[in-house]
Order: sequence, then C-alpha cells, then structure tokens
Amino acid sequence: MKQSQLFTKTRKEAPADEVSKNAQLLIRAGYIHKTMAGVYSLLPLGVKVSEKIAYIIREEMNAIGGQETQSAALQKKEIWEATNRWSDKVTDNWFKTELKNGTELGLAFTHEEATVDMMQGYISSYKDLPAYPYDIRTMFRNEKRAKSGLMRGREFFWKALYSFSENKEQHDEFYEKSKIAYANVFNRVGIGHLTYLTFASGGSFAKYSHEFQTISEAGEDIIYLDEKSGTAINKEVFNDEVKKDLGLKDAEFTELKTIETGNIFDLGTKFSEPGNLKFKDEDGNEQFVHMGSYGIGISRLIGAIAEVLSDDKGLIWPEEIAPFTIHLVTFGKNENIFRDAESLYHDLKNAGIDVLFDDRDAGPGQKLADADLMGMPYRIVYTERSLENGGVEITKRETGETEYVDPARVIAHFTEG
Amino acid sequence: MKQSQLFTKTRKEAPADEVSKNAQLLIRAGYIHKTMAGVYSLLPLGVKVSEKIAYIIREEMNAIGGQETQSAALQKKEIWEATNRWSDKVTDNWFKTELKNGTELGLAFTHEEATVDMMQGYISSYKDLPAYPYDIRTMFRNEKRAKSGLMRGREFFWKALYSFSENKEQHDEFYEKSKIAYANVFNRVGIGHLTYLTFASGGSFAKYSHEFQTISEAGEDIIYLDEKSGTAINKEVFNDEVKKDLGLKDAEFTELKTIETGNIFDLGTKFSEPGNLKFKDEDGNEQFVHMGSYGIGISRLIGAIAEVLSDDKGLIWPEEIAPFTIHLVTFGKNENIFRDAESLYHDLKNAGIDVLFDDRDAGPGQKLADADLMGMPYRIVYTERSLENGGVEITKRETGETEYVDPARVIAHFTEG
Repeated sequence: MKQSQLFTKTRKEAPADEVSKNAQLLIRAGYIHKTMAGVYSLLPLGVKVSEKIAYIIREEMNAIGGQETQSAALQKKEIWEATNRWSDKVTDNWFKTELKNGTELGLAFTHEEATVDMMQGYISSYKDLPAYPYDIRTMFRNEKRAKSGLMRGREFFWKALYSFSENKEQHDEFYEKSKIAYANVFNRVGIGHLTYLTFASGGSFAKYSHEFQTISEAGEDIIYLDEKSGTAINKEVFNDEVKKDLGLKDAEFTELKTIETGNIFDLGTKFSEPGNLKFKDEDGNEQFVHMGSYGIGISRLIGAIAEVLSDDKGLIWPEEIAPFTIHLVTFGKNENIFRDAESLYHDLKNAGIDVLFDDRDAGPGQKLADADLMGMPYRIVYTERSLENGGVEITKRETGETEYVDPARVIAHFTEG
Repeated sequence: MKQSQLFTKTRKEAPADEVSKNAQLLIRAGYIHKTMAGVYSLLPLGVKVSEKIAYIIREEMNAIGGQETQSAALQKKEIWEATNRWSDKVTDNWFKTELKNGTELGLAFTHEEATVDMMQGYISSYKDLPAYPYDIRTMFRNEKRAKSGLMRGREFFWKALYSFSENKEQHDEFYEKSKIAYANVFNRVGIGHLTYLTFASGGSFAKYSHEFQTISEAGEDIIYLDEKSGTAINKEVFNDEVKKDLGLKDAEFTELKTIETGNIFDLGTKFSEPGNLKFKDEDGNEQFVHMGSYGIGISRLIGAIAEVLSDDKGLIWPEEIAPFTIHLVTFGKNENIFRDAESLYHDLKNAGIDVLFDDRDAGPGQKLADADLMGMPYRIVYTERSLENGGVEITKRETGETEYVDPARVIAHFTEG
C-alpha cells in the first residue's frame, strides 16, 4: 500500500488522558482511535494486526477440532439466573440494557451460558461428543476504571472456545492438546519466549486451571517462575502444598510481573448442571456434559505485544502479525530514485510481499521516525545516499541490524530467506 | 469437511415462535441458532456464508478505495446529541446502557457520528481527501417487534462505508463508482437478477438517494419498476414529478414487493456540520467535508437470499457464498463404495474444492432430504445404484438437472468448467 493513500497519520502526542503505554503507542502510530476510556476503534493498520492474530488463532483452533460460531452479544436473563451470575451483586461488570417492553438484557462478557444454551439443540447422545465450538467476537465488560489501554477494555475482541466432553478422560485429552495449540499461538504472534504456562487456582472441578502469563512490567499479575523446569505458579496459589504437588519444593523461584494473555479451565459440570445439558451415555444413562473453557483476548494480545515488543522509538511487530512486512522509504529530490523505489514497491507486491511504500511528500526525519514508530519488521531506505553505500539499506526493526543490498537482489533477499 | 464431525444437525421443525421463512429454513438447516426474538447466533455453516459474503464486500470496497476499520459499538452521548439523534423521542430504536458512574452510553445502530468523530484526527486539509473508511461490524437496533428473521434483527451484521469528499463533484465521482461496486456485490452473492437500483427520497442534500431493492414476497417495501429502462422508483417518491424527472412519464410500471438490501446516500454536510468536521481547501478557506453513506446488511443479505433462493425442500446457495460447493453423499452397506466415496472426498479437497462429505450412519431418505435442505450448489450421490447408472450422480441444486459422471472424471468435471 502507498502511505499517501492511508487515511490515518502518526501523531506526536497521545490524548492527555491516556495513561497506558500500549494505547499511547498504538494511538500515536495510527493503529487505534480512542473513543472513550477503555473503548477503542481499530484503524486500518490495527484491523490488519487484529485479523492476522485472529487468523492464527483460527488455524490453531481448527487444527484441534474447533468449529467457529458467532454467538450473539445480547444475553437473556434466564440463562444467567440459572447459573447465579445475573445479579450485579454477584457479577459486577455487566453492561445491561432492555427491550422496548422492559425485558432486561445483558451484553455478553463471556459465553459459557449462551453456548450451553445453544448446544442444547445439538447434544443428546455420547455420539454427539466431543464438540468444540468457538467464537471470535466483540465482548463488553463494565470496568469501573479503565486505565490499561487495550489490555483491559470495556469493549474487547476475544476468542472463547468451549469443550463438551463425555467425561474427565475425554476432557483431559483435549485439554492437553489445547496447551500445545496455545503455545503455538503465542509463538506465532511473537511472544512465546516471554509467555509461561502458569498453574492457577482451579475452582470446584479441578485442582488447577492454567494461565498463559506474559512477562511485562505493565502486568497486573504476579507469577513465580522456576526457570530450571520452566514451571510457573500464580501468586494466588503459590504455597508449600502446591510447590510440593508440582515436585518443586526446593526450586528457586523468581517473582515476575505478568499479563494474563490466555487461560484454560476445566469447568466440569459447573455450567452443564444449571443449564441442564445432558447426554445419554453408551449404557443409556443420562449424564451431565463435562465442559472446559479456553480463552484468549485478541485486543489484549495487541496491547500486550505493544507493551513488550516496543522501544522508545515505537512499536516492533513480529513478522507474522505485522500489518506490512516491509516499510519502503524514499526521500530526496531525485525523481529517478523515486521512480526506481516505486518500481521496487510494485515488484515486491507482485512477489507476494506485504509492503508499505512511504511515497509521501515529507522529509527524512519524519519518514524515518514514522517507520520506527509504526514498527514494520523491515525498513528499506532507497535513496541517493544508500546507493552510494552499496544499494538499498535494509534495517531489521527488532535489532537495528543494517545491510546494503543491490536493488535487483532485494526480492531474492526476502524470498530466499 | 466430514458431516459426522459437524456439531450441528438439521431439524424437522423450527421453533414454534419463529414466523419468518428465512429464519425457519436457516434454523432447520443448521445455519443459525435463535437465542431470542430478533437475535440469532451463527452456527459453523452460517459463519461460512457470512464470511464469504463479507469477503466479497471487502474486495469490492477495497477496489474503490475503501479502508477497513472496526468502530466501537459503545457510543458516547455527546456526539449523538450534537446531531440531535440521542433522544429516544427522535430515535426510537436505541439500546442504551451505562457506565458504573452513571454515564449513559448507546449501542451503535449506525456509524455516522462515530466515524465523523474518528475522522477529526485525520482530516484537516484538502490533501487528506477523499477518504473512505468502512466497518464490517455487529450493530444493535431495538426493534419493537422482530418478526422478519435475519432481515431485521435486533443484533445484526453489516457493512457501512462513509465517504469524505472536498465537494459535491468529488463526492459524485465516488457515488457513481459505488453503484457499480454494489451491483458487483449483488451479482456475486447471486441475487443480482432480482435486485434493482431504486430511486428513493434524498433528504436535505440530494434530490434522491438510491436503494438496492430485491424482489421478494417477504419484502416490506414496494417499488415501481419500468422493465424497459430497468429503472425502479420507491413507492414513497413514486409521483408524476419524479417520473417526469427520470424521463419516464409514459412508462409502464409494475408494482413489486421488495427487500431493501442496500442503500447509498448523499449526506452533504448533514453530519460534518454538527460534528464540526472541516478542512482547508486549496485557497486556505475552511469548509465542511461533504459526506456520503453506503450501507449493506450482511445478516439481512443472508436472510434475503434464504427467502428468494429456496424452494419447498430447502435452501439453494449460489456458488460463491455456499459453505461448500459440493455435498458428497453415499449410503448403502457396500464398504468398498464408502471407501471409494471417501477417497473421492479427499481428492476433491486436494483439488481445492470445498466439499461436505455425508459420512454419517443414516439412510438415503434422511441424507438426500438433508442435502436439499442444506442447499449446496451440487450434490454428488455415490452409491451402488449410481454406478450401475454410469457413475456418480451429480445434481445441480438450483435446477435439479442430473448427470452421471465417471468417478475418475469428477474433478475434471468441476475444475475444467
């Protein structure tokens, strides 16, 4: 894409009321627009990142048997009363609204109740199990204070998968697969090296749940990590019993601040009992379905990545989720060079490489600063000066490493690895 | 995909309270789940149709310069008060909610105000124009009664593009392009032959707006069509002055019931004035931005297509938006035939063809009825009997035309046109 065509622009300053680093950076770089505290719209660059993350999640969920649905946001009271989560005294982050006839409705902040209700129509026998519907949807959460940018929005975009199994054994098999799928997601979005599978409290049906915790100073959670075994424990269950349980009685733990970027739960029959979701087993006996939940916040991931993969100059997108792989920059008054750069832009596009071409009428200072702020993995500077230095200047955003490559060799440079 | 893996099933009956044909068919065929009147969740087959329609719309909008955004659903009061659309007395279909501190919020039913607010950050000079942001989002509309299925939901999925232009001339140029893009969309989703560009009332800034009206007995609109010129006029402006205006004083008009499946409006400065969205023109004078709006309901399209492309047996999906191109069906006790059918399934998949393989343990009656109900464009029956008749039986859902093709020739049959 030509940058002159992009309707957004970078900004020197984020709004004065924006206190989170992730939202400040994403606003300044033109990825998001803040409409009010905790509510952000995605601009074209933000849509590209979000869609690429959603694509990765879809691939990984489909690979373990997930089937995508789009559940409604509007929630009817009855199904939430059955699980005792309707009352504002129990659930303090509802957004509620009502129909013209006064019927109260809620805006979904999670989908256990609605999915159980939906699956009533499709589960009656053990032959219908297991089943793994998942949603990638906008959700709503009435946060009292919203000060963490995209990491805790009042309106957010997430994936929620629910597993429906015959029994604990069938559940566990999928649960283990999901751990691998989640690890794949974190690796592909570029924060695998900072993200730890963490033991957390399990609720009524399992001793533990598991969280995916990404190390960040901006995090609101605390984990204790044993680097030797790679095992992490959430502060809330970090005690001698748990350490012993995990065979880590004498391990040396490091305390770390983290962002919870995903979680998986064994729900047992916590929702299928009140929702009366039963199936007939092979012997013809009725049983409650065994459920699990598997969440990952897409907008939260964007926020977390902006927190942990950035520097004082701006964002540093990992290749698989960057809006563009290459930011091609040219400046100076030499029209031939501009034309050559433009023709390299077309060649790169034709070779199937996502490239943003800064064809704007602006000076080197602004163009180079914008490229750093916007954070594409590779910057190519194509100028008179770079040619004098041996070609175009290719800089890796992550490391700052620079090399000069003959313009005619640029495509091979990127396609031949 | 193997049908035994799909967690949804067809049903003999739709819910008793469902009165619309489109929702009845889509529920029975396993495309949607009704959560309450006017609120439907999409099941995996429905997601596939919706995504394919969204893909087509994206392609057509991008082709005329559109840039995708994802605007927030939560709306702040101030921007709607500025346009005098906040009050429930003026706008009778709001869903409203509030923050913990009592601040009132609305749920978006359209995006003019929010988009003007967003573009404040990006439009200041004529050099920033034109710009064409668009959303493909879930919207909310508090319908007093909801009885038209997906055609008028309380929660719906749509595309809204807004054009921002320097003046009427620049606006008109895009407006004309949008007509072609819309015609492309209607052709590609398979209802172009039933859909007419229709003159409708224009509001303060243009004599006419244009609607895309699809002929259907289930429609709530009435148009008058002059088949000779292909010109249609909405009943609301069907009078002698308009007929004369369009050079159709003596034309013979047919009255038709229709569904409004899209519309385009010249908004002039109706929203940029109250939103104070200005730009400096080439002479340095401040001017209000000239806007246009271009809507198309994706969930409404799914409903309309289910209404007009269906028969008493079920749905009839056009090829470009069908969840699968081929429904491959086998039955009988011959295990070799099952294995051969399964291997054809794999071959078709490997050839890049979307195929649903009915591998369920069920009888011919149910399998054939389900294939008709679910409505894939082509049904292939692979049985002992079909082989006796000369191969596999390929039936076109739309026409019922049947031919027998050597199993070894099936892929060529589909890929060589």
